[in-house]
Order: sequence, then structure tokens, then C-alpha cells
Amino acid sequence: MVQIAIMGYGVVGSGVAEVIQTHKKSLKSHSKNIIDIKYILDLRDFPDSPFADRFTKSFEDIVNDSEVQIVVEAMGGLNPAYDFVRRCLQAGKSVVTSNKELIAEKGADLLNVALENNVNLLFEASVGGGIPILRPLNQCLAANNFLEIAGILNGTTNYILTKMINDNIPFDTALKQAQELGYAERNPDCDVKGYDTCRKICILSSLAYGEHIYPKNVYCEGIEKISLTDVKYADMYGGVIKLIGRTRRLGNGMLDITVCPMIIKKEHLLASVNDVFNAILVKGDSTGDVIFYGRGAGKLPTASAVVADVIDCVKHIHARKYLYWEDSDNKNIIPYEYSMSRMYFRIKCENINFALNKATDLLGGITLIGTDEEELAFTMDKELPLKDITKAENIMLDSNIEICSVIKLADF
Amino acid sequence: MVQIAIMGYGVVGSGVAEVIQTHKKSLKSHSKNIIDIKYILDLRDFPDSPFADRFTKSFEDIVNDSEVQIVVEAMGGLNPAYDFVRRCLQAGKSVVTSNKELIAEKGADLLNVALENNVNLLFEASVGGGIPILRPLNQCLAANNFLEIAGILNGTTNYILTKMINDNIPFDTALKQAQELGYAERNPDCDVKGYDTCRKICILSSLAYGEHIYPKNVYCEGIEKISLTDVKYADMYGGVIKLIGRTRRLGNGMLDITVCPMIIKKEHLLASVNDVFNAILVKGDSTGDVIFYGRGAGKLPTASAVVADVIDCVKHIHARKYLYWEDSDNKNIIPYEYSMSRMYFRIKCENINFALNKATDLLGGITLIGTDEEELAFTMDKELPLKDITKAENIMLDSNIEICSVIKLADF
Repeated sequence: MVQIAIMGYGVVGSGVAEVIQTHKKSLKSHSKNIIDIKYILDLRDFPDSPFADRFTKSFEDIVNDSEVQIVVEAMGGLNPAYDFVRRCLQAGKSVVTSNKELIAEKGADLLNVALENNVNLLFEASVGGGIPILRPLNQCLAANNFLEIAGILNGTTNYILTKMINDNIPFDTALKQAQELGYAERNPDCDVKGYDTCRKICILSSLAYGEHIYPKNVYCEGIEKISLTDVKYADMYGGVIKLIGRTRRLGNGMLDITVCPMIIKKEHLLASVNDVFNAILVKGDSTGDVIFYGRGAGKLPTASAVVADVIDCVKHIHARKYLYWEDSDNKNIIPYEYSMSRMYFRIKCENINFALNKATDLLGGITLIGTDEEELAFTMDKELPLKDITKAENIMLDSNIEICSVIKLADF
Repeated sequence: MVQIAIMGYGVVGSGVAEVIQTHKKSLKSHSKNIIDIKYILDLRDFPDSPFADRFTKSFEDIVNDSEVQIVVEAMGGLNPAYDFVRRCLQAGKSVVTSNKELIAEKGADLLNVALENNVNLLFEASVGGGIPILRPLNQCLAANNFLEIAGILNGTTNYILTKMINDNIPFDTALKQAQELGYAERNPDCDVKGYDTCRKICILSSLAYGEHIYPKNVYCEGIEKISLTDVKYADMYGGVIKLIGRTRRLGNGMLDITVCPMIIKKEHLLASVNDVFNAILVKGDSTGDVIFYGRGAGKLPTASAVVADVIDCVKHIHARKYLYWEDSDNKNIIPYEYSMSRMYFRIKCENINFALNKATDLLGGITLIGTDEEELAFTMDKELPLKDITKAENIMLDSNIEICSVIKLADF
């Protein structure tokens, strides 16, 4: 028998307990062991829970109990999760977590503590919820160089964008609907501003390229400014707008990492990923394009990913899984202004022809999507470094051209 | 250093040697070991190969060399692969294979020999080429009951159907194009008649449900009879025709397994899987719908999946991976005539109204897609057991109604 503790009895924590309970038989046959929940840490009381007798309010009960070999962290947030996870690892316990903030901010440090203490730190559920992605990525690693990773990594924003695209509902209303359905938090910033996507692409990139990528070093733009007008022009162009976290490995070995809305051609499979679903595209030099698709959040999908990690820990209770990356100063990330981009533009000007000629000159060739009175929507014909695009934008502004929106065109 | 042998230097075998050569550095860091190719078994001569000095024509060199710990089988076919793999396992060597025929026909036996000899038998590349599918499926197993697995598992037939659907090219011409491009064999039966798809859904189902499913016990229908007329009506219905291998677990625990063309609604992600790409939908009770997409064949994708397995063998050189299923008499598969289906029909009759009424009566409600002179295309409104549908077909035939085609409607 292997005794485990669950820290946090919210959506994920209670889901983990439920999956362990309902899949007892197959867990036993697959892990060749019985998994027993000895403690559940939560400050709240759950007198009606089937696990009522396992609850504790004291972390010390868990960390000091040598019988507990595996700890599931499902509290979320950095504090006290970071301290608790670190201490569990130091106490020789393997840890499974679904906490993307924790891994994106402290992954290198915690992986190192795990290594020093010869225990495992697994976090499959931190990216893509129920989609198996980190483990396949890790296992493909040795036989592949990854040219690119790009994903729809946040269900909330994808739900909002799907509503905008398919039902012509404006951003604010779509956000309100998402909140009513429980897909978005009351304070939606973390999703809507792209922070959640950023954490996830950081974790994927850290794993794929072996060096910790810190969210603070990644350019991050949300979907708050996307309007139905842009959705309409994107449609005329033959595309849809999606919030994409993306890492591209450049020829010189540096990484170009961005989180921003992108216009994806409708023929691409990622364009068909709707509602709260997530999908991750991985381009390997051997495997070619591989896409993983599924529910990126939700109680049972996330819990089942956590439980798969728990089983892996049980099977490797006296061994170490190879899952590791080094710390880094992120000098391997190119500054955003040097990132090459091809953009969609929506501009306004009293003199449309003047604006058209100006934009053509400044951006080295454009293709018109459509016009509407004083409005002009077009795409750039070729990629430019972002600093050159910004310079062009400033000249346009100085020439009385209003820039309504600029959205990146996907190049995958 | 771990010494390996590669049996068969065709597309896959030479790809494996190439990937091992080109990814030496990352292989070393991930497997914590140097992988050395000691032998390559092939009856042909390859004097210009960079591995020219490793070739042997004698299997005995490999099986009798105790230094060889891992053998890659990339010969294909049942004989002599079955005998060779069995003897390698008995000699205490782990085996990695991409041979779907071998695993679909002899998986239970070989897994048992591997178990008895405490070695590993891995075969990720046998399904989905470069798409990681067996390992994620195996790892999701414990925390999920699989309700359904459905996949586009054969690139050749998907290429042919894509040409028929997108370019209005008839089957024979599309097949010829596929042959010219090297996607289809000169004798295309294995792909076109669904045998390859059948082997792959058998392997997926054996793993998911823990009992060996033999191809001979699975209903298998190919795409030879699909006409452009059916493609057109499917389009009017809002769908596309794909060759699908599918297993559904029924409420009573029995399995409903079929390989046949199905009409899939265009909104479903599987409908957008085109050309030689493969995709596998897995429905778990915890994870919900998960889809894996990528290149199902090709030298480097397949080779990279083989190499990932080799690394796993290197890491588990003194341990066993849990990957196993029992042998079975397949009494767990429901006979095809009891499988519940909803069908698309195309029929012909001089008296269209008579045919329409007859079909409505016999099938308990139908919805018309379109008519063309004496032709009538419709879908059934509700599922019926196949034996009832066959009975209805026979009565129609007796009533001078010609049945041009009957294609299953996907229910996922």
C-alpha cells in the first residue's frame, strides 16, 4: 500500500479523491499497489465528505508523516504551495501538482530539489488539463528537435472567441456568459490578459528546450481588444482569431516566444478547436506536425491527469523519472521587437487612398481585405521585425492615420 | 553503452539508424546511456551505407550475442518476424517493433513471452506512426474507463478519400495518384480493403480493454465501393466520408468493433483530418474526448516513435514496463448483425414515391437528402441492429428497389 496526501480540496483536489475512489480496481492492477488517501489538507470543513475522517488543517501532519510517500498539491497559487511542495520534496516525498503558476515560476528550483532528494515532481495536469501532453513531449524529446510549439491553451478565452466568431456576440457579453457558466473567474484578468496561456507555454517550452522560461520574460497580449469588426475581417481573409501561446526555435538556436491573438487560416486544424477545448501543435524534425486535443480544464479531466501522475510515482517509488530542465537567465529568448511577424491591420483615415499608399510603402507590400467608409483592413505581404512594424505604425499615426487594430497572422 | 540490433533495413529500419545517428547527443542525455547499433539484419547488401560494417545476413548472430540487449524489428509481415521476435524475447532481449500485423495477430502471445522472460516488448510505432498514442493511452488507462476509441488510422485511404471529396476525383484515379506518390502499394488491398485499419484498431482496443482482439473477429469493410455520388450526397447532408476503425464499449461490457467508411459531420474535428494524416479520438469517462493527430506513416515519424521506445527500453533495462493484455476468445465482441447503426442509403427505383414510403416503413423513419431522377438518398432517423437493416434491405430488393450504397453515420 502507498499512502498519499492531497493538499487542497477544491475542484481538482476533490476530483482526484473521486477518481481514486471510482477507479480503485484499475488503479490497483495498473500500479500493482493500493493507493490510500491518508490526509486531505484544507482549512475548510467537509463533514459530509466520504473522506471526512482524513481531513487535517495542519500541513505539518503531512510533511512529518514518513508513511506519506506521495503528495498531491491542488491548492493553486504560489503561496503557500511553493513552500509546502518544496518541504515535501525535501522530506523525501514525491509531489504531483496541477499548479501551472507554481511550475511556470518555480519549476527549475523545484525540479532541482526533487533531483537532490531523489524523488519525483510530476505536473502533467498543469498544461492541457486532461490532454496527455507533457509526458508524450518528454518522451518524443530525445528523437526530435522541436521547431515549434503552438497551442490554444486557455479554455475560457477560446470559449469567448468562439462565441464572438460563431454567434457574433461582442467580447463583454461573451465574457459575462463565460462567467455565468463558471468558465471564467469573477476577476477574469488571468485568462483574458493571456497570463494563464503564458504560464502554460512557458512550461511546454521549458520542457522542450531544457531551460526554464520565466513568464515575465515572455511577450504577453490578451484578447480584450478584439472586436467583432476584426472577427468579420478575419473571416473575409479566410481565418479565425485564436489566442495562441507559441514558441519557435530560430536557426541560431534562440527562442521566439509570444502569447497573443493570432489569425489562423480556417483550413488549419487549430482553427476548428472551439469552445473550452484546447489543442497543442508540436512540430518535431522527426515526427512532423503532431496535435493533441481535448478538454483543457474541468474537474475530472484534470483529476485524471493528476492520478496518472500519481500512478507513475507509485511505479517509480524507488526510481527517478527523467523530467528536468535547467534554470536560465532567459538570454536565449529574442527580444519581442526582433520577432519576425506578418500582421493584419485595421486602420482609419479620411483619405483612404493616401492611407493605402502609405501603408504599402511603409510595410513593403500589403493585400487588401476590405474597406468600410474610412476604414481599411489589410494584411502585410511579408514578415518584418516588430521594431520595423512599430516604426511604421508611428509614422502612420503622425500622418493622421488611426490604427484600430493590429493582429498577428499565424505562420504555422 | 547499450548495444542494439536492427532487423530489416527498409524504410523504417534505415530511418531508425538515421534518427539514432542524427540525435546522438540528445539520445545520450535522455537515456543516460550511449546507444550503439551493433548489427543490422538484411538479406540485401548496402555497401554505401554509413553502417556498412554492421550488416549481417544471419539472425543467429543477433540472437546468440549476449551483448545485444535490445532488438528493433522493422521487417514487417508475420514470417519470419514472429519467430525472430519470439526468440529474441526468449533470449532475454527487449524488442521494439513497428509491425502492426505482428502485434495484431500475435500480441498476446508475445507479451506473455516478454513477461515470462522479464523483458519489454514495445510497439508505439505500430499505430499512428509518429503520433504518440499507445503510451498515453496506457498511462490514461488506470484513471479512465474508455467508452469509445475511433480513428482515421490509414493514411493511404484518407489520402484517396480527401482527393475524392476536395477535388472530385473518382476512386480509381485517386488510388492511381496515391500509388504514383508512393502512398499506396502496387497491391493496395491491405489499405483499401481496411485490413491495415483493422489491425490498428485491434491493437488500440486490446490495450484499452485488456484482452486481445483478433482482426479475424472484427467486421471490416473498405472504401472500394465509395462513389463520387455518395461523396456529393454526404456533402449535402453536411458530412464527409472517412474510413473509421472504431470500438465502443456497450453498457453490458461487450465491445462493438467495426472498420468501415462512415459519414462524419463536418463540424467534428475528425472531418478536418485530410491527406495522409491520421487522428485518433479517445473518449474516457474522466478525460472526456481527447484527440491525437499527426502523420500516421513515413520514414522519420515512424522511426522517431521506434527510437522513443528504444530509449524507454534503455531506461527500463532491468525493469519491466506495464504494457500487457490477456489472450481472449473474443466472445466479448458482439456479432456485427447486433451492432446498432444509423445508415445513409442511396437507392434507385422507377417509382420514387413507392420507394420512399417503403423505406420509411421498413426503417422506422427517414430524412431525405436529395433525389436525382430515379435515385433517392436519405438517412435513417434512428439506430437499428444491423440484422434489421439487412432484413429491410432484402425486402426493398424484393420490391424492385435497387440498393446502390449503404454507409454508416458516425455517432461520435
